[in-house]
Amino acid sequence: MVNTCRYDGQYTCDWDQMLAQRAERMKSSIIRELLKVTLQPDVISFAGGLPAPEFFPIREFREACDYVLQTEGEKALQYGPTEGYPPLKEFLAEKMQKYGVPAEPPNILLTNGSQQALDLIGKVFIDPGTVVVTGRPTYLGAIQAWNAYEARFVTVPLDDDGMQVDLLEEILKREPVRFIYVLPNFHNPAGTTLPLERRIRLAELAAEHGVFIVEDDPYGELRFEGEDITPIVVLHKENTIYLSTFSKTLSPGVRLGWIVAPERVTAKLVQAKQGADLHTSTFIQMVVNDICQRGLLRPHVHKLRQVYRERRDVMLAALEEHFPPGTSWTRPQGGLFLWARLPEGCDSEHLLRVAVEEEKVAFVPGSAFYPDGDGRNAMRLNFSNAQPDVISEGIARLGRAIKRELAK
Amino acid sequence: MVNTCRYDGQYTCDWDQMLAQRAERMKSSIIRELLKVTLQPDVISFAGGLPAPEFFPIREFREACDYVLQTEGEKALQYGPTEGYPPLKEFLAEKMQKYGVPAEPPNILLTNGSQQALDLIGKVFIDPGTVVVTGRPTYLGAIQAWNAYEARFVTVPLDDDGMQVDLLEEILKREPVRFIYVLPNFHNPAGTTLPLERRIRLAELAAEHGVFIVEDDPYGELRFEGEDITPIVVLHKENTIYLSTFSKTLSPGVRLGWIVAPERVTAKLVQAKQGADLHTSTFIQMVVNDICQRGLLRPHVHKLRQVYRERRDVMLAALEEHFPPGTSWTRPQGGLFLWARLPEGCDSEHLLRVAVEEEKVAFVPGSAFYPDGDGRNAMRLNFSNAQPDVISEGIARLGRAIKRELAK
Repeated sequence: MVNTCRYDGQYTCDWDQMLAQRAERMKSSIIRELLKVTLQPDVISFAGGLPAPEFFPIREFREACDYVLQTEGEKALQYGPTEGYPPLKEFLAEKMQKYGVPAEPPNILLTNGSQQALDLIGKVFIDPGTVVVTGRPTYLGAIQAWNAYEARFVTVPLDDDGMQVDLLEEILKREPVRFIYVLPNFHNPAGTTLPLERRIRLAELAAEHGVFIVEDDPYGELRFEGEDITPIVVLHKENTIYLSTFSKTLSPGVRLGWIVAPERVTAKLVQAKQGADLHTSTFIQMVVNDICQRGLLRPHVHKLRQVYRERRDVMLAALEEHFPPGTSWTRPQGGLFLWARLPEGCDSEHLLRVAVEEEKVAFVPGSAFYPDGDGRNAMRLNFSNAQPDVISEGIARLGRAIKRELAK
Repeated sequence: MVNTCRYDGQYTCDWDQMLAQRAERMKSSIIRELLKVTLQPDVISFAGGLPAPEFFPIREFREACDYVLQTEGEKALQYGPTEGYPPLKEFLAEKMQKYGVPAEPPNILLTNGSQQALDLIGKVFIDPGTVVVTGRPTYLGAIQAWNAYEARFVTVPLDDDGMQVDLLEEILKREPVRFIYVLPNFHNPAGTTLPLERRIRLAELAAEHGVFIVEDDPYGELRFEGEDITPIVVLHKENTIYLSTFSKTLSPGVRLGWIVAPERVTAKLVQAKQGADLHTSTFIQMVVNDICQRGLLRPHVHKLRQVYRERRDVMLAALEEHFPPGTSWTRPQGGLFLWARLPEGCDSEHLLRVAVEEEKVAFVPGSAFYPDGDGRNAMRLNFSNAQPDVISEGIARLGRAIKRELAK
């Protein structure tokens, strides 16, 4: 190969001038930046949303990979349909039906985790300035996905039962809302669960005001106690886009989630996904399908519920013991997270820096979960990733750091 | 679970009114719709861009899956960094360096195939109305990805040496171009290769006019004859975003590609990918990395070159024998496709319908590769997927269909 270019090849265009307007609003997620810092082995991190890796079904994945490649290797390594691998779509439709959700395969689209579902929803439904209602706080991945489409966020405060739906009506009267984003089960970051009455009222209000609902349910299967509550999509099936994922039940590293939506909505999301990445890995879909078809998902989830319940209990006990008066926290019935509030005026972003440096313990500051950067006197604590004794030690460290800050 | 909703749950918002403006421009790719029709086992299809499945490295994948899960299962199934799995980034940086491209790991971003790279480029660089220069014809996946960001396409005709770069200057003077999209090696759909002089002139023109270049190179390693030609990114490294993929060398079904760009451009694309899907499957990246680190990629690609060269030769011979006077076609030096032109006035969309119905043979009509739907007297023929005797039979069938159409 010869390089006979007549200029020096060093020219560069003015990249800053090349950016689309939406790119100005793209920022790195504070969580993902934090995750890098907290990779130091001596830091106890409650920051990530990571499942417990020691319970990953590794043997099941090995057997499934081997079986799929041995029996259908040519299909597994080839291009596949954008909608998803048909047997997995059928499995998910049946699974949803058991859950009370009237889904058929044409309602379902496989995605690269729920994050891609949020992105596709943004791509199809959000113009610059489109009004989206979220909780206050809400999942930061949704803020990030929809910021990139220049959404305008209007937020509804949460209490210990999740979104305060009675405050929604006034917003729907005032603002040209396009959709409402809710995490009804074991909310990320708040750990709250929306009671049935609020779900019904939410569905009614959406219908009255002609807006739709995005119901994000990554943790619904990880309930530790109490009864399952009817999903909003069951109450309001023609008006709801429902999202779930295998990230919290099997593995986040395979990046596999799914959307359930009215058929014509799914069809539009399929078009958006074609342009976005053609389709989700055929191989990954076939491997996960094999695990599901063998009936290994349900016992595995059953085990995870026990493991995570114990870890939640350990964290709640440690909080009682080590957190000072004036702090409070939610008591989640499932999921991966709880939400702790510090006394007014205590800044969790500052606390994080101190806690990592002086006590080698990390969490996510509350501000990451507010579109407007509020929430600085709160924090999200993950209880699924660390082992029980590590949770106790970490909360003790964090308690010391908070007490020192309050004493200043 | 109880459903006590006080209305019938049948309400639906006016979904058509909910769509973002960009969603109006999303259409299903004609190729992907076609692929469904041509799944009938008696249809010989030259339509897809599918590799030969009988040469997929299935054994290598089985061994790599087993090794990765056995030795690093907890890491493989866990969340990972958005930028990509570090050892694979290092492998790709070294691979690019051998190819003459001065890449380091911070220049590289792993994507879900090159299609996601096209999408991320659109997300970061295309506002509604942004002018993008493409060949005429060009890769339909790029049209689809950038239509979703409401790009305005300005096209430059191709001849047998690819994009007619001498026609570019006038466009750059006239239009507020943001970037130029080129497929220099074994163009999809045209099968053409851009000579070094044109690459140099393209780099010079981009520098003179302050625009950047997107160099899409999925087939570069599949050269059957002749010498490799310097990639544009080598000539113009600070001003070029280079894309490649494992789809045509290892497997499209794993969905794994990569971007090489100036460091600050990669950083912006990483932010866009965080919001789009957090990261590409850790497991898939570790499996492909294992295959690459064992040195299995190069001998596998060597074998594919021989297989595809034979198939190209069989197709060229069959075209000589069966296509009527007035037709012509390109003679690609590599890749997966050639481009055939029909006599003026012969409509390849109509021909497709006739060919599938009467002769059970399929191809992609040329119009799919023109942003403005022109190109109706041409077709793309894939020679990688079908076995040699099937190629001969398929081209004989297609020749008969064309002759019948011309006789009408």
